[in-house]
Amino acid sequence: MSKEITSREADYSQWYNDLVLKGGLADYSAVRGCMVIKPYGFTLWENMRDQLDRMFKETGHVNAYFPLFIPKSFLSKEAAHVEGFAKECAVVTHYRLKNDPNGGGVVVDPDAKLEEELIVRPTSETIIWNTYKDWIQSYRDLPLLINQWANVVRWEMRTRLFLRTAEFLWQEGHTAHATKEEAVEETEKMLDVYARFVEEYMAVPVIKGVKTPSERFAGAEDTYCIEALMQDGKALQAGTSHFLGQNFARAFDVKFLTKENKLEYVWATSWGVSTRLIGALVMAHSDDQGLILPPKIAPLQVVIVPIYKGDEQKALIGEKVDEIIKELKALGISVKYDDSDNARPGWKFAEYEMKGVPVRIAIGARDLENKVAEVARRDTKEKQTLPLENLAGQVKNLLDEIQMNMFNKAKSYRDSHITEVNDWAEFERLLDEKGGFLAAHWDGTAETEEAIKEKTKATIRCIPLDNKQEAGTCILTGKPSTQRVLFARAY
Amino acid sequence: MSKEITSREADYSQWYNDLVLKGGLADYSAVRGCMVIKPYGFTLWENMRDQLDRMFKETGHVNAYFPLFIPKSFLSKEAAHVEGFAKECAVVTHYRLKNDPNGGGVVVDPDAKLEEELIVRPTSETIIWNTYKDWIQSYRDLPLLINQWANVVRWEMRTRLFLRTAEFLWQEGHTAHATKEEAVEETEKMLDVYARFVEEYMAVPVIKGVKTPSERFAGAEDTYCIEALMQDGKALQAGTSHFLGQNFARAFDVKFLTKENKLEYVWATSWGVSTRLIGALVMAHSDDQGLILPPKIAPLQVVIVPIYKGDEQKALIGEKVDEIIKELKALGISVKYDDSDNARPGWKFAEYEMKGVPVRIAIGARDLENKVAEVARRDTKEKQTLPLENLAGQVKNLLDEIQMNMFNKAKSYRDSHITEVNDWAEFERLLDEKGGFLAAHWDGTAETEEAIKEKTKATIRCIPLDNKQEAGTCILTGKPSTQRVLFARAY
Repeated sequence: MSKEITSREADYSQWYNDLVLKGGLADYSAVRGCMVIKPYGFTLWENMRDQLDRMFKETGHVNAYFPLFIPKSFLSKEAAHVEGFAKECAVVTHYRLKNDPNGGGVVVDPDAKLEEELIVRPTSETIIWNTYKDWIQSYRDLPLLINQWANVVRWEMRTRLFLRTAEFLWQEGHTAHATKEEAVEETEKMLDVYARFVEEYMAVPVIKGVKTPSERFAGAEDTYCIEALMQDGKALQAGTSHFLGQNFARAFDVKFLTKENKLEYVWATSWGVSTRLIGALVMAHSDDQGLILPPKIAPLQVVIVPIYKGDEQKALIGEKVDEIIKELKALGISVKYDDSDNARPGWKFAEYEMKGVPVRIAIGARDLENKVAEVARRDTKEKQTLPLENLAGQVKNLLDEIQMNMFNKAKSYRDSHITEVNDWAEFERLLDEKGGFLAAHWDGTAETEEAIKEKTKATIRCIPLDNKQEAGTCILTGKPSTQRVLFARAY
Repeated sequence: MSKEITSREADYSQWYNDLVLKGGLADYSAVRGCMVIKPYGFTLWENMRDQLDRMFKETGHVNAYFPLFIPKSFLSKEAAHVEGFAKECAVVTHYRLKNDPNGGGVVVDPDAKLEEELIVRPTSETIIWNTYKDWIQSYRDLPLLINQWANVVRWEMRTRLFLRTAEFLWQEGHTAHATKEEAVEETEKMLDVYARFVEEYMAVPVIKGVKTPSERFAGAEDTYCIEALMQDGKALQAGTSHFLGQNFARAFDVKFLTKENKLEYVWATSWGVSTRLIGALVMAHSDDQGLILPPKIAPLQVVIVPIYKGDEQKALIGEKVDEIIKELKALGISVKYDDSDNARPGWKFAEYEMKGVPVRIAIGARDLENKVAEVARRDTKEKQTLPLENLAGQVKNLLDEIQMNMFNKAKSYRDSHITEVNDWAEFERLLDEKGGFLAAHWDGTAETEEAIKEKTKATIRCIPLDNKQEAGTCILTGKPSTQRVLFARAY
């Protein structure tokens, strides 16, 4: 096998890169920090996107498209926002190249300097709220429930495929409401949509919570999040939903006439998930043999590999497989028949294992005689011999079972990695030895939060929604506290 | 009515802008030359995109995603390509802003200058072929049939909503082949896909042809195109498919090992259509009352408006409409019930006429008693009274008929605007008085082509595929010619 994967134990980080690259999800590009999403990885993204899009539409949202560029001055209109994004943005300063008069190829044409620089959007609150100003006059124009699928750019210094790239794909919802209550409700509703998607489709359990002030989105009054746990014990923020208050409405002067004929600022939310979710998916489920992808979003759900000697056997098997494929497709199952002569069955098995195809069916000449097939599931690697009679129906049930099993396995790992801690030495020890979420008391100050981060690299991932209130003392300072929060090292 | 539309006769260009803005398709943005695609317009684009995507996948293509940015040096690697795109590109030169030490808000941080400038992709041949170099080693890796849905930027000086914007959405197919024949076949196949889409779904007839050398894509050996005709007699290029020869393979050194174990350069194609198609759609069909959208891609196919006095009537009508909606949806027809009390039926009728909804159903209390409804079609404005019994089935047939009628109407207009011309004075007169395509002889030189353009603003739109060969003399120079080509003024 040419495609050796580093084991998780040997080097977790290299294992992740191996899976992404060798599993055919993505590739490095010639542009620093930007990746190429390969066809297999992009089909995975399409499946995720299409399902999320359905869920957004079911909850009353429509899609639109806003400009890639944001005038520099817009960014500055919301004070916290510019603070958060100015330090890592791609800046367009010119609109033309010209031939180098000294013969050095093409160079920037100094005569084509923009009057005002344009920022490649790192997020679109500013350009969108500048537009909403024209769209919102009265309460009749509200709520405005708009989503955008787009590429965004944040000039991160240290990048990782999918997890942190300079350019990434995402969706960003931007809604406008007449009341604070309605905006808060929307923020929570979309957090629920994300949680449902990540759990039901990606088979990754999440904890819903709110961020501390220092971890909030730049410009938000409250940031809600879903936090997932990876196999190395590190947390990963899988999606955020922001209650923006009236901050952007004030910054862009967006007021509406209420039913009572008064002019008031509009209330806002924004919420987003990105291709980063693919990184979470890879790290939550996969093993040392390759990707393990949940059936509901896998690019390919079933692969069929024939085991044959000679053209006659191949033709016979092929005939039967055509029937099986027809049945599978009728049940909405995606399937590929790999009867290429380029590789032996063993090589193909390893290849599809690497790519995380949930179910593999192998059929040989003897199987055909016995009217059976060998069916292997990727998640547990169990193989079973199943009758060809109603094979598609059995495979459908198996796919459902795999989906459920993957979630349960991830959940049991996650649940066993939420630990209540009351002692600082224990806190530090557990972070190093076990990882996961540490439920500990915190005195509620940004200073303590920062000090803990400095000492341990652990951050407060969230304050879980409906958190139990209990008296306690801060894990670091011993000051009084009323609830535990979840600490973890994170991606 | 607050939303007056300029008539085509009064000001065709203003008419077009009115339709786009007041029909809710798009809006101007704060960024020069960039537009906002509004939800109604974006749903139209989604319908077009989804259908094209199905057709690409049916013809064996897969989607992927490549970086937004292109290193400046890449652009220069193909000589014609840089010549074509360097003069109108957005250039990223810095990756950070900082607070102005003089208190002027945020400014570009001079310490964050990129070593090499990045171009916001105007098209992706260069970055993709630089990637293909790593993906293609042997004939087994070919053909590579990849498409990308993306935003691109071309810094046009004069912009028009949809027709010519600095940023636009499009798809770009980039395929790699082992032989010239296969690449040419792919180029032609994708032209056929485009022609089929534009005719069958957009109801706009097109002429398939090839461009003259001076109108070719920068870097192509041959550019195939489909040309449509707008109601003002101007042509519009609706899609292009390029045979790129080995130009980009040479520029990026992409070779493959043939079955005979020889190293050869790979053959390439690229092909694209963009949001510009929406401009074509608007101008091909609409009238002075608003948009007319073909049922197969309309964001909304049917609107139902109740005519009632009082809540009791409204409730009765609403009950019946619920049934009708269920039946329509079961047939896959999109429908909206507008029972808002904000506006009178007449205002609603005008609004949906403006938005080009193909079928409008009005139901009043009397209709309910008589078990009928008034059904109006947008294309011909004909109204008929139809029985409520199997109304959905009748509406489905009507939608099919509208789709066909729109195509036939556009085709008959187009066909009556292809004129054979043999005399220069007549050529000039027809361009001014009638417009459309003028089929005229041309001596085959770029000089004559340029001279005609200078004199008349007409360009050679294409040399139709399977063009009839006939002896003649050039319309301008009188030199010998073997075939007519199609001239027109164009968008």
